[in-house]
Amino acid sequence: MNGAEALLRTLAAAGIDTCFSNPGTSEMHFIGALDRVDGVRGVPVLAEGVATGAADGYARMARRPAATLLHCGPGLANGIANLHNARRARSPVVNLIGDLSQVHRPHDPPLASDIEALAGTVSGWTRTCRDAHAVAGDCAAAAAAAQDRREIASLVLPSDVCWGEGVGPAAPLAPAPGTPLEPSAISQACEWLAEGAGTVLLLGGDALLAPALPWAAAIAQRTGARLMAESSIARSERGRGRPDVPRIPYAPALAVQALQDARRVVLAGARSPVFSFAGPDGRSGPLAEGTLVHELAGPAQDVAGALRQAADALACAPWRAGPEAPALPPARGAVTPEAFAASLAALLPAQAIAVDEGVSFGRAVYGRMGAAAPHDWMQLTGGAIGCGMPLATGAAIAAPGRRVVNLEADGSALYTVQALWTQAREQLDVTTVIFSNRRYAILFDEMARVGAAAGRRAHDLLSLDRPAIDWVRLAESLGVPAERAETMEAFNDAFAGAVRHRGPHLIELVI
Amino acid sequence: MNGAEALLRTLAAAGIDTCFSNPGTSEMHFIGALDRVDGVRGVPVLAEGVATGAADGYARMARRPAATLLHCGPGLANGIANLHNARRARSPVVNLIGDLSQVHRPHDPPLASDIEALAGTVSGWTRTCRDAHAVAGDCAAAAAAAQDRREIASLVLPSDVCWGEGVGPAAPLAPAPGTPLEPSAISQACEWLAEGAGTVLLLGGDALLAPALPWAAAIAQRTGARLMAESSIARSERGRGRPDVPRIPYAPALAVQALQDARRVVLAGARSPVFSFAGPDGRSGPLAEGTLVHELAGPAQDVAGALRQAADALACAPWRAGPEAPALPPARGAVTPEAFAASLAALLPAQAIAVDEGVSFGRAVYGRMGAAAPHDWMQLTGGAIGCGMPLATGAAIAAPGRRVVNLEADGSALYTVQALWTQAREQLDVTTVIFSNRRYAILFDEMARVGAAAGRRAHDLLSLDRPAIDWVRLAESLGVPAERAETMEAFNDAFAGAVRHRGPHLIELVI
Repeated sequence: MNGAEALLRTLAAAGIDTCFSNPGTSEMHFIGALDRVDGVRGVPVLAEGVATGAADGYARMARRPAATLLHCGPGLANGIANLHNARRARSPVVNLIGDLSQVHRPHDPPLASDIEALAGTVSGWTRTCRDAHAVAGDCAAAAAAAQDRREIASLVLPSDVCWGEGVGPAAPLAPAPGTPLEPSAISQACEWLAEGAGTVLLLGGDALLAPALPWAAAIAQRTGARLMAESSIARSERGRGRPDVPRIPYAPALAVQALQDARRVVLAGARSPVFSFAGPDGRSGPLAEGTLVHELAGPAQDVAGALRQAADALACAPWRAGPEAPALPPARGAVTPEAFAASLAALLPAQAIAVDEGVSFGRAVYGRMGAAAPHDWMQLTGGAIGCGMPLATGAAIAAPGRRVVNLEADGSALYTVQALWTQAREQLDVTTVIFSNRRYAILFDEMARVGAAAGRRAHDLLSLDRPAIDWVRLAESLGVPAERAETMEAFNDAFAGAVRHRGPHLIELVI
Repeated sequence: MNGAEALLRTLAAAGIDTCFSNPGTSEMHFIGALDRVDGVRGVPVLAEGVATGAADGYARMARRPAATLLHCGPGLANGIANLHNARRARSPVVNLIGDLSQVHRPHDPPLASDIEALAGTVSGWTRTCRDAHAVAGDCAAAAAAAQDRREIASLVLPSDVCWGEGVGPAAPLAPAPGTPLEPSAISQACEWLAEGAGTVLLLGGDALLAPALPWAAAIAQRTGARLMAESSIARSERGRGRPDVPRIPYAPALAVQALQDARRVVLAGARSPVFSFAGPDGRSGPLAEGTLVHELAGPAQDVAGALRQAADALACAPWRAGPEAPALPPARGAVTPEAFAASLAALLPAQAIAVDEGVSFGRAVYGRMGAAAPHDWMQLTGGAIGCGMPLATGAAIAAPGRRVVNLEADGSALYTVQALWTQAREQLDVTTVIFSNRRYAILFDEMARVGAAAGRRAHDLLSLDRPAIDWVRLAESLGVPAERAETMEAFNDAFAGAVRHRGPHLIELVI
């Protein structure tokens, strides 16, 4: 058995059954081995940013890593922006990066580059395999590193280790124990939570999912402490019958306002909040000076267990949802952020997965989705735009049978629009809504916020209206049916139709 | 004057008048300053790979660097693949990479990443600016590094150095002297060249352009030494009335054959030849064992001067073109590589710039272009596909009034198809020909070459036919008029029409 086959069988044994692939010459033996090994599905993508973003979306839903297959340093480089987002989401990913054969590389052929340096910027684990006999063991180590620490593991594979004779697959490594909870951290958190008013229980990571989320809500119900979610949410379970957790707003001024009464912040799977960008005033985060911050459990710990112990210590009754608000109809008339949010809350199918890269227009949506049918919500975590379409692609592959609804700002969507082709090829149930405002709207806001004067040239450089992008044709060219909506009535009809049918669909919502 | 304005004025003073821009929040002061400073044209792009590839194409034509404006580490990462190609082409580029403000970065906000590590993989010069007072000097140093050493210079700009008060622009640095020519290297080369048969004069870099190329041809005419070009050509001046230099073939077996009679190789601006990929046989390059290799002048030296000195020492008469072959008509009938090459040679407008990322279908074209009207030829240099459309975009901006003809394999084109929008926005005279074979054809060849067995799954992963990409709609969606051709007659008509009209156009050639 050659190294490629041993590698592939090791992946399958470790439970990694999906490989988002954009291969090149040096990965041919791996591709060849796919026909001899069952249990790993190769999903082709047209660009590496789609592969890595899809692996992120897959991991957020499946709670286990997918693999990516990337071609040498430049192929990895193309995937780094979405690996950056995946790292911030704590999504496990196993990157398989082909390289030149080891006897060839010293001759500095055109594709030679420093792959380990590139990989190191986003990976918690990086290794170059040196021998066909080592490839199975290296692969098992990569899978374990990704799974145990929820990190990105990057394994560089010179082509000779794939075509050389290997020793057969390696068994999965035993899971490593996590960082144990600290009783003193829990008791300190309980003291603060018991204060009720003035305490914020800030949720991130697993704390926004069952079983942790209902425990957090039980604590809030019992103590009067306020629940909030981190500004960037990797995944949260939302909708009717679930706790409705407001998010720290993106805009610094609004974030400061949302946390102005916080005197104590208890972190559950969350980091202490910071702004995405600081302005010239030098302020870096929304907490007022003197606000106390304490970590109940970190993102790498058993957050659900910590919240359960805290709830027990505080003698909390199980969380009970309040009376359900009457369902509201979809909005009519002009397209506004608020109207869109109302329509989406009314029309989102139950068990949908909403992927939000709506940037400025999309900000109003999250807050309304507590009234929607139960769903999962995920969004950009690392600030590198171009993640939404790939995330939606990977989430749909991880959760077949569930509708994925991808809210996309037009500027962001254009980075990785190639994902639509994979959605068409795999006939994924993804409904994409493009917020078509024909400019990088967020940057107009930022110009003002940081006090940069914007004249005609600046305006021109931040606009996408010359020519306007025809999203209907763009989607159709890649095999995804599409239509345009300019009123809420048209959107409501288009959306209701799209989510009833299998396969991908795109709606250009002109805003 | 704030740092951003000082930076921009320094760029302009250094002769850098074009900035391919994909900005984000941290670059807003730079964008704002564009309205206050004349002399630097901002060209917006939808994705960073377009910015960096366009800067490469610009530099190859203009012989001086353009700037790119990129957003933090992920923005740079998206541009690295084409910077890798630019580095292999020895194209000078000045990257301006925005970053978080220095007081904010220690809080590890979402976009924080190791920009210097990323930049270091492709840059000859990397620096992070620490102070608004230093930004102009740092920018002058970056421009000089790029220009003097034909390297990639990456300047990281925390946003506070842009919004802080600067000291005004810096003057350009004096050019650094290059590596002098060595008389002994020239005399040794002359000895070998004088042997005539059995000596190959291998040209790369500037040796493929005037004034070097006619000197090389004069030497060959005088001595009987054979001219060849490197396998990957950054830029060469070709066509009727110019020396017709065959290229080392890409395929290892053909490259070995092309150089089998070479006993001595004199390098003029070229590197000693290596294959792009070695196979399991372990052979790394096309030269037979025992072939002698000597460098007349390296890529960083005055290659034209070295060739001129060698030609003088060898008492060469100026090169004279042979009798011109009669012009042949464009091909008719079925679309084949040979038919396409014949049509392009017949129809290419004089002074066109041909950008070749035709990969497997396109290999036949170069050899026929000696019979075309005088033109420039450029191609993929670093093996990272996705360079062609950006190169064409940058070349068109550097050389207004000249027709750019971009030959694109469909799989390669899909990495950076966003470049079409910039071509539409700037109304660039780029005619794109998509070789639409609906698969990664080169990889089918490679599977066989390296002995990887390819079954149904492998075949499926390397195919682009489910669904087929509709290139006409794709181009139109981004503002570029397009049509489809399925016969040579249809192609000839479409191409002749496209190059007569101003602005971009795309032809999907179904092959």
